[in-house]
Amino acid sequence: MKVYGDIQSGNCYKVKLLLNFLELAHEWIHIDVLKAETHTPEFLKMNPNAKIPVVQLEDGQLLAESNAILGYLAEGTHFIPSDRYKKAKMYEWMFFEQYSHEPCIAVARFIQKYQGMPEARLEEYQKLQPKGHKVLAILEQALDGHHYLLGEEVSLADISLYAYTHVADEGGFDLNLYPNIQRWCQRIANSAGYVGMNTQTTAV
Amino acid sequence: MKVYGDIQSGNCYKVKLLLNFLELAHEWIHIDVLKAETHTPEFLKMNPNAKIPVVQLEDGQLLAESNAILGYLAEGTHFIPSDRYKKAKMYEWMFFEQYSHEPCIAVARFIQKYQGMPEARLEEYQKLQPKGHKVLAILEQALDGHHYLLGEEVSLADISLYAYTHVADEGGFDLNLYPNIQRWCQRIANSAGYVGMNTQTTAV
Repeated sequence: MKVYGDIQSGNCYKVKLLLNFLELAHEWIHIDVLKAETHTPEFLKMNPNAKIPVVQLEDGQLLAESNAILGYLAEGTHFIPSDRYKKAKMYEWMFFEQYSHEPCIAVARFIQKYQGMPEARLEEYQKLQPKGHKVLAILEQALDGHHYLLGEEVSLADISLYAYTHVADEGGFDLNLYPNIQRWCQRIANSAGYVGMNTQTTAV
Repeated sequence: MKVYGDIQSGNCYKVKLLLNFLELAHEWIHIDVLKAETHTPEFLKMNPNAKIPVVQLEDGQLLAESNAILGYLAEGTHFIPSDRYKKAKMYEWMFFEQYSHEPCIAVARFIQKYQGMPEARLEEYQKLQPKGHKVLAILEQALDGHHYLLGEEVSLADISLYAYTHVADEGGFDLNLYPNIQRWCQRIANSAGYVGMNTQTTAV
């Protein structure tokens, strides 16, 4: 299996994290978004939406969208609940992640960490702060009295939302305001097979 | 089952469409976003993210996020492929819908149809046009030579993406540029059990 991505991108890192938890062999091919490597003719053939991560399975078939990739890889494992309602709640969190969480937390982080706060994006960055705190407050509330987002069992919802949440401070969000989130991040980081975001990956 | 939503919202309409295809009895409770009815204390108890649709199942359990709701309702039906890779491709399209498609097509439509093109949002509206055409071109390409997004069988990917695509003209996108999309829309509209977006719903 080949993974095309940048481990510093939360959307790619969540795939790396699950692959490690599941001990699945893979080759990691580094793609640099800032160098427009997602817009080459070769890459666009793999994903016309020009986004990472993309996974190429052993039979050559391609899959994009980080949370769809998680769902594929975790099929039949304890990361997807067998209960119909719980599985739907897991996807509810994953769609929340892509629609409400990522566009605030990840974009603020991109502006701060990768672009160095350019003047042209300062207003956007400021507007993302209250929105980001709103989604973090939703997570904080959901984790109150629970080990994981679906209750006491870990699921893809946790892996998906951990990816950008645990580095939210790089987008200006002070996680000290969220003790439940901090305990949850620590719990995930202590799990067997955990790999950090700064891990060296095989670059080709 | 109770559905809290506004059928004129594509995210709610897609739930209505699937419920009709599956002939599932439900009560529709109209929620007016423009009157801030998603921000009442009662609604926020159902969905702290203040968004429609929300479904209350017969046992009282709640579910938000339109595409997670589709996944729950279609469990065990032909709208979800049994093949592992095809099911992942279905979710790939559904995450594409929420991350790349809805924020262009639905937002442009909201500015044009519901807000009447206010001066303050004109620049944003103009910027959404090329982005929207980019995602429509991806759909057009995927439908080339195929009846549905996954090939020859309908799936939740089609229902999810049909919802805002078939009214994209209300956001300024000329669908005459996309013959494959037009044929696909017609195919869905001709399906048994189809219900339009302007259907009367039970309001409580």
